[in-house]
Amino acid sequence: MSLDPVDLTARLVRCASVTPEEGGALVLLAQELEQAGFSTTRIDRGGVCNLFARWGDQGANGPVLGFNGHTDVVPVGDVADWTFDPFSATIKDGFMYGRGTTDMKSGVAAFVAAAVDFVRDTPPDGSIIITITGDEEGPAKHGTVAILEWMAEHNQQMDHCLVGEPTCPETMGEMMKIGRRGSMTAYFTARGVQGHAAYPHRANNPVPAMAQLVGALSGHVLDDGTDHFDPSTLVVTTFDTGNPANNVIPAQCKTTVNIRFNDAHTADDLTTWLRRQADAVAADTGVVFDMDVSVSGESFVTPPGKLSDMVAQAVSAETGVVPEMSTSGGTSDARFVKHHCEVVEFGLVGKSMHQVDERVKVEQIGQLKAIYARFIRDYFGG
Amino acid sequence: MSLDPVDLTARLVRCASVTPEEGGALVLLAQELEQAGFSTTRIDRGGVCNLFARWGDQGANGPVLGFNGHTDVVPVGDVADWTFDPFSATIKDGFMYGRGTTDMKSGVAAFVAAAVDFVRDTPPDGSIIITITGDEEGPAKHGTVAILEWMAEHNQQMDHCLVGEPTCPETMGEMMKIGRRGSMTAYFTARGVQGHAAYPHRANNPVPAMAQLVGALSGHVLDDGTDHFDPSTLVVTTFDTGNPANNVIPAQCKTTVNIRFNDAHTADDLTTWLRRQADAVAADTGVVFDMDVSVSGESFVTPPGKLSDMVAQAVSAETGVVPEMSTSGGTSDARFVKHHCEVVEFGLVGKSMHQVDERVKVEQIGQLKAIYARFIRDYFGG
Repeated sequence: MSLDPVDLTARLVRCASVTPEEGGALVLLAQELEQAGFSTTRIDRGGVCNLFARWGDQGANGPVLGFNGHTDVVPVGDVADWTFDPFSATIKDGFMYGRGTTDMKSGVAAFVAAAVDFVRDTPPDGSIIITITGDEEGPAKHGTVAILEWMAEHNQQMDHCLVGEPTCPETMGEMMKIGRRGSMTAYFTARGVQGHAAYPHRANNPVPAMAQLVGALSGHVLDDGTDHFDPSTLVVTTFDTGNPANNVIPAQCKTTVNIRFNDAHTADDLTTWLRRQADAVAADTGVVFDMDVSVSGESFVTPPGKLSDMVAQAVSAETGVVPEMSTSGGTSDARFVKHHCEVVEFGLVGKSMHQVDERVKVEQIGQLKAIYARFIRDYFGG
Repeated sequence: MSLDPVDLTARLVRCASVTPEEGGALVLLAQELEQAGFSTTRIDRGGVCNLFARWGDQGANGPVLGFNGHTDVVPVGDVADWTFDPFSATIKDGFMYGRGTTDMKSGVAAFVAAAVDFVRDTPPDGSIIITITGDEEGPAKHGTVAILEWMAEHNQQMDHCLVGEPTCPETMGEMMKIGRRGSMTAYFTARGVQGHAAYPHRANNPVPAMAQLVGALSGHVLDDGTDHFDPSTLVVTTFDTGNPANNVIPAQCKTTVNIRFNDAHTADDLTTWLRRQADAVAADTGVVFDMDVSVSGESFVTPPGKLSDMVAQAVSAETGVVPEMSTSGGTSDARFVKHHCEVVEFGLVGKSMHQVDERVKVEQIGQLKAIYARFIRDYFGG
């Protein structure tokens, strides 16, 4: 009997697996996969739970197709804002509501259901490896990274990997991802001289200096895009003095700058550029700028080729839509997988991800299973 | 036995009277003044504590000399930045350190000590009224204003008033105040469109827009000064997003702008100008600016005359320095007292007021007591 991907999605959504809680989601998947002949291993590190599953012997011939996904979800915010209990997987008017319905329990359920059908009906000459992490939404230090480390230690190698994150902005099938921009965050502290607002000449106000830096950074065009990438973006997300007194010039203020960058830049080059901008304002104002930089990942791209074409063909055959090969959007665990093997991403419409009343069109779960099933069949030369 | 003004300053500094906390400071002053024959009344309104004290019967003949000061202090900021506990009144190398040592517990202590000596040794044919508020640094709605209202209701009238705020920029005796600039505060809220940092084209970030406004306001010269006044000043004291997420473009941010203005402006004119600046940035960015304005006071001046000359003579006799009659600096409660009687201001060097490691030269506290004592003696024709 086939695994119903809608039912499996609902059962996963009912596991309250807000990062780093496992919530029963990985236990459920391990049960289903073992019943279908997969061997499974839990790789739990630093308070995070992860699952590795393989169908096909490690020494066997034939290609090894990988899948990567996550069962952890972001917090629900205020439950009172939701139309239905966010862990109830309530279906109404063709939508299933709940945290994780799009990001990305439906993607995991669709692939698992497709893979289980495939190995039962047409056991391939090759292997399928399914890697599911419980920390994609959090720090991601002990999630996919830990799975890949464990795989390297145990000579587990994927030849290609599909990541099942939601990739379509509005319409099912319209977009897949062949890379991602890099992401880094700079934390600036401007330090001036505190003083009374009535005597500004005795103080050195860090606020106009920081405003000048914000203007210089925000007004700069990093690039106009590259072959596979949209233009890089720079966003100032915070600016705070935390000054409780209106008549006191604050001693310092803090700003956070987030940069999503394409392959025209590296995090190192951008760090140098940011430091120079701050130094120029410092020279102009006498305000001292401290800067800390945290790099989430460099940009990467899997150039269009056999793997991406195969995914695109499966998508267009099932939906009638030819997917754009994009590198837009935020980061995903593909940034870790790309060090291991070629990786592309395809999943359903992610419009409501991370929002109140996150929901998935129920028919799209079945459609996604069909796309994944066709891709698996094509991959193994079916 | 004389009241030691240094010891009294230290005891007042040890009262942690950050606005609107009374901190024990007014209780302490009331005790000292009652012991010296003053009658005292606490005038507590709207969470603020104030003290009225009088030596001499209400019906008696002779002039009534008034003094106005405050015991509340501004917040200390980060205590870790201070060399000594800001409420310890630690003395080192001739300086007493602590919040309020210059602004203005030493001024209060010096006048109280001088007045107590005077009424004991040479009881005058007249009265001394001492008014001390616990809210000069805060909203000042229930501080000196409340004391003056109470005085009007109880037929308490001062003929002249000395305000003991620190008035000397660098050197003891160099400056007294015969007026003050006006002061107003504008509160801006910039409202854009919230969004994910990875998709800035779907959001409208209010932070660079506010930074642009800060640049426009900070870079503008309001005037070059007038007959009795220095140039007006504009200071941005706060800028806050309060955004807890580094990957979210905030929906709004807030800024506070404080303007100290001379008689070339009115609060109304400046309000119109501020609104126009915000409108220009709004037109440029699509960010909406809300603006609230709070006016602390218009500018005012007490033209040089008998009262200011008497203070100046006492200062030059004790210090050898002839004080400049200035209208510079911030607001003080003189802006309220001027509606009641003629008022001038003299106090010690205020260089470190509102700063980390606020401190007073210990010898200047004794010098200030001597100046006040001479002024009181001269005032009552001694």
